[in-house]
Amino acid sequence: MRIYFDNASTTPLLPAVKDAMKAVIDDCYGNPSSIHLHGRKARIIVEEARKVIARILNASTGEIFFTSGATEANNMVLMASVRDLGVQRIISTNVEHHCILHMLDHLEQTSGTKVEYLKVDGQGHIKLETLAQLLKQDDAKTLVSVMHVNNELGTQTDITAVSKLCQEHGALFHSDTAQSVGKIPIDLQEIKINFLCGASHKFFGPKGVGFVYINGDNMIKPLFHGGDQERGMRSGTENIYGIAGMSKALELALIEMDDRKKKITELRDYFIGKLRTELEDIKINSPDSSLHNILSVSFPESSKSEMLMMNLDIMGISASSGSACSSGVENDSHVLEAIGHDPKRKTVRFSFSHMNTLEEVDYVVDKLKSISAVAV
Amino acid sequence: MRIYFDNASTTPLLPAVKDAMKAVIDDCYGNPSSIHLHGRKARIIVEEARKVIARILNASTGEIFFTSGATEANNMVLMASVRDLGVQRIISTNVEHHCILHMLDHLEQTSGTKVEYLKVDGQGHIKLETLAQLLKQDDAKTLVSVMHVNNELGTQTDITAVSKLCQEHGALFHSDTAQSVGKIPIDLQEIKINFLCGASHKFFGPKGVGFVYINGDNMIKPLFHGGDQERGMRSGTENIYGIAGMSKALELALIEMDDRKKKITELRDYFIGKLRTELEDIKINSPDSSLHNILSVSFPESSKSEMLMMNLDIMGISASSGSACSSGVENDSHVLEAIGHDPKRKTVRFSFSHMNTLEEVDYVVDKLKSISAVAV
Repeated sequence: MRIYFDNASTTPLLPAVKDAMKAVIDDCYGNPSSIHLHGRKARIIVEEARKVIARILNASTGEIFFTSGATEANNMVLMASVRDLGVQRIISTNVEHHCILHMLDHLEQTSGTKVEYLKVDGQGHIKLETLAQLLKQDDAKTLVSVMHVNNELGTQTDITAVSKLCQEHGALFHSDTAQSVGKIPIDLQEIKINFLCGASHKFFGPKGVGFVYINGDNMIKPLFHGGDQERGMRSGTENIYGIAGMSKALELALIEMDDRKKKITELRDYFIGKLRTELEDIKINSPDSSLHNILSVSFPESSKSEMLMMNLDIMGISASSGSACSSGVENDSHVLEAIGHDPKRKTVRFSFSHMNTLEEVDYVVDKLKSISAVAV
Repeated sequence: MRIYFDNASTTPLLPAVKDAMKAVIDDCYGNPSSIHLHGRKARIIVEEARKVIARILNASTGEIFFTSGATEANNMVLMASVRDLGVQRIISTNVEHHCILHMLDHLEQTSGTKVEYLKVDGQGHIKLETLAQLLKQDDAKTLVSVMHVNNELGTQTDITAVSKLCQEHGALFHSDTAQSVGKIPIDLQEIKINFLCGASHKFFGPKGVGFVYINGDNMIKPLFHGGDQERGMRSGTENIYGIAGMSKALELALIEMDDRKKKITELRDYFIGKLRTELEDIKINSPDSSLHNILSVSFPESSKSEMLMMNLDIMGISASSGSACSSGVENDSHVLEAIGHDPKRKTVRFSFSHMNTLEEVDYVVDKLKSISAVAV
């Protein structure tokens, strides 16, 4: 038995997504920039995918640009906001993904951008009042960059409220939506966001492809210079297989969104119930209101829990430590530090898909118990 | 009948490449950064591909980094050389790909980099003596960026000679090898190049993936900031299907290099012979010594040749005008301008693969004749 409880890290390709990719692999090899028949066939794939993604987000097709993933998309938005839109200050949080945090460090060092970090509470929530205060106290052109769903905890940010605050204070708003696109409805006519991103492999599409939404009001300049693909916004010959797969995956995500949520919520609740009744001294790091697919759990300090991730792996369970693992040492991540997690306890992020089963939960809880029973 | 004579623009996927991509699509979905079994399976795919590419170039695996293509790779090298290696002057040519030329414009404007362009002769060749003079006359830290094979003409640059000049004058050397990797042997122990790049879709691999070679002596900093994939040099979850396909394509390119060259050279010679005997007033823009797969031909001015590309397309032939086509107007490209091409004449770049046939050449020449015979 092999169990995959690491769906926040990346997801399996759905059969229909595989088929969509294989159809392009088999039937299309033109360059979308070529004007002849071979090129036009490839162009249609790219533009049909753009329409699907724009429709799902209720955006205009002219606002969707394909990238190699969310890292490129997030990097592009932050860098270009400073370079092209006169942003002098960025307000973010200390629990963002590294592709935000490391880029903010870079901008602070190289462009003198003022970066202010909102602290989060013990469950990873920002305080809207603090954001409002920060927005009030400085007139510098500001971008607020706050993730929609935290990748380690599942903590959700009320981006509608953040958007309203940004509008009140004339700030731009970017949200790293890598964990939420395809799982939570996002209607860009309902909520004003200047920039957001998607990573296909988080919603059962292929790795190495994503998109950036750039609101038509705030056109930035590209990160790459070259053949002017993507209407000049992103040069480089398009990953047509990836784009086709991503579009199919997002289409399915929308159709199945409620069913998936229902199934995963049941599974997660069942998991929490079993953990609480069958294991001692566990702590759920994720808030009750977290996104349904993520569950961060910490286990008491003991010699038995030292190699927790490795033991789970040996027992056939793929999960994530929620930590940057280097040379086998499992340390707390910046997110766990930010919520004041006790570094002596060992944390596992279990993250689910609609393809996981209650039997898998039973198996995992059994194994967690057996690890606790291993002799020192 | 549909003929594809646009292989310098992009190439079809070979059956074995399709199989390699499909195998990853079917069997692997882990994130290469995850330490569990699913992750390790994906990591193996990425690292095996890196070994293949390093071996083919006679480089170290630590010098190969995967990117989304040659545009990203070339952009990264130019930008980072200025930012991280103290390059103050870049010597390039006026026939480079736009991903070089537009980035040079950007660096000139934003970083004050001094950019000097070598002019080319009527066949697209640079003069080595001019390069030597330029290198001599300025002590500023210099990067020479010269493409190996011109994408419109097939003109080859003697990169061994350029490399020697760069070494003599302490300049860094970058070559855009997008058109040559997989077609000409490149041995990085024989020739000292600091940076080069590859675009998988130019050698019968997938679109949207490529690599950059960064010589171990000249480590630059990354363009993207994030999860520190590619040993910190290129953040973002890897396009594992693309990487697997690219590696298979390059492996085959090496094995079949001589056979492909022989077959394509015969086909090209046959094409040239037929053009010269069956059509009037044609001009071959490519030099005799051009890379075997590219043939740029120009046709006399006439109302019949005005819509040449469109007519070829209608007749079932995919080729490229060698021009940036906007709103249906076919103008000469920067490369044709640089070689002093008569803009009144219409140019077609025919570019071949080992899968093209002599029958296809016959068909194309027949159609070219029939276009000439169309009443005004």
